[in-house]
Amino acid sequence: MAATEPTRVMMAVNESTIKGYPHASISSRGAFEWTLQKIVRSNATGFKLLFLHVQVPDEDGFDDMDSIYASPEDFKSLKNRDRIRGLHLLEYFVNRCHEIGVACEAWIKSGDPKEVICHEVRRVQPDLLVVGSRGLGPFQRVFVGTVSEFCVKHAECPVITIKRKADETPQDPVDD
Amino acid sequence: MAATEPTRVMMAVNESTIKGYPHASISSRGAFEWTLQKIVRSNATGFKLLFLHVQVPDEDGFDDMDSIYASPEDFKSLKNRDRIRGLHLLEYFVNRCHEIGVACEAWIKSGDPKEVICHEVRRVQPDLLVVGSRGLGPFQRVFVGTVSEFCVKHAECPVITIKRKADETPQDPVDD
Repeated sequence: MAATEPTRVMMAVNESTIKGYPHASISSRGAFEWTLQKIVRSNATGFKLLFLHVQVPDEDGFDDMDSIYASPEDFKSLKNRDRIRGLHLLEYFVNRCHEIGVACEAWIKSGDPKEVICHEVRRVQPDLLVVGSRGLGPFQRVFVGTVSEFCVKHAECPVITIKRKADETPQDPVDD
Repeated sequence: MAATEPTRVMMAVNESTIKGYPHASISSRGAFEWTLQKIVRSNATGFKLLFLHVQVPDEDGFDDMDSIYASPEDFKSLKNRDRIRGLHLLEYFVNRCHEIGVACEAWIKSGDPKEVICHEVRRVQPDLLVVGSRGLGPFQRVFVGTVSEFCVKHAECPVITIKRKADETPQDPVDD
């Protein structure tokens, strides 16, 4: 097969939900490392990774107790803090790509993750979307973890769903 | 990244449902060509493709009107004919792989496709499962095309779902 444009792989990445745990979620890191190892392999120039982090405005704003009493000024600095956290999250993935010579781009959007991811797929038109998933059982899935299912149905490109491995699952399977 | 074992990609392939239409379904061929072009790319030795075709015993046996009156002998020859059709289907994919120098294996199993695919994933332990999907809307999805959804939830490896492109969709979207 002749050399062509690199395969553009969009990866939706998020922060860990575990309190005090820094940076990327278990499923985001797992999906990223799997993609490098099993898809990109030694063909670093054949791929370009596009990292999208979607921040959920309300959840982030009211996660800390003191934010309930936040003045407009506090709220602005809080939003700024969120943005900085988001940049740190993306920095993790961008640095890994630079280390191994895979081209990448990264950006932050705000909104409902499943809607924003599908919107960004329409806008950016990647060849492939990679979403990590907590891989919960049928009972938990009713309440959480529907982002990957929504993307498989609605994203206008092929979608890889990568479940978290059993040995990476924290004590409470809802954590990530 | 150091050279390692090839990435083993299992592809579930099926026959077209369109009457008189020979060989592989639109979504199987689409998923296969997409995988070669966007994942394997020029790195033919980095991948091994594992083609699984699941034959549905009852549907195949009673698809032709005359099979309702089939004697045990007729039924045996019918099953034989099915096996030959299945081999022809797999031959299409195996020949393409040989042309481009990608290692492959292919086999036929009988049963409920979604159950058999997930069972074969547990047995063969591929790195990745590729399933084509008709990409139907929410209304049609109630009645057909749940194989890919089942595999995303239950297969014990990452799963790529590749929807058929809009311009490849036949007149009746239930056809494939």
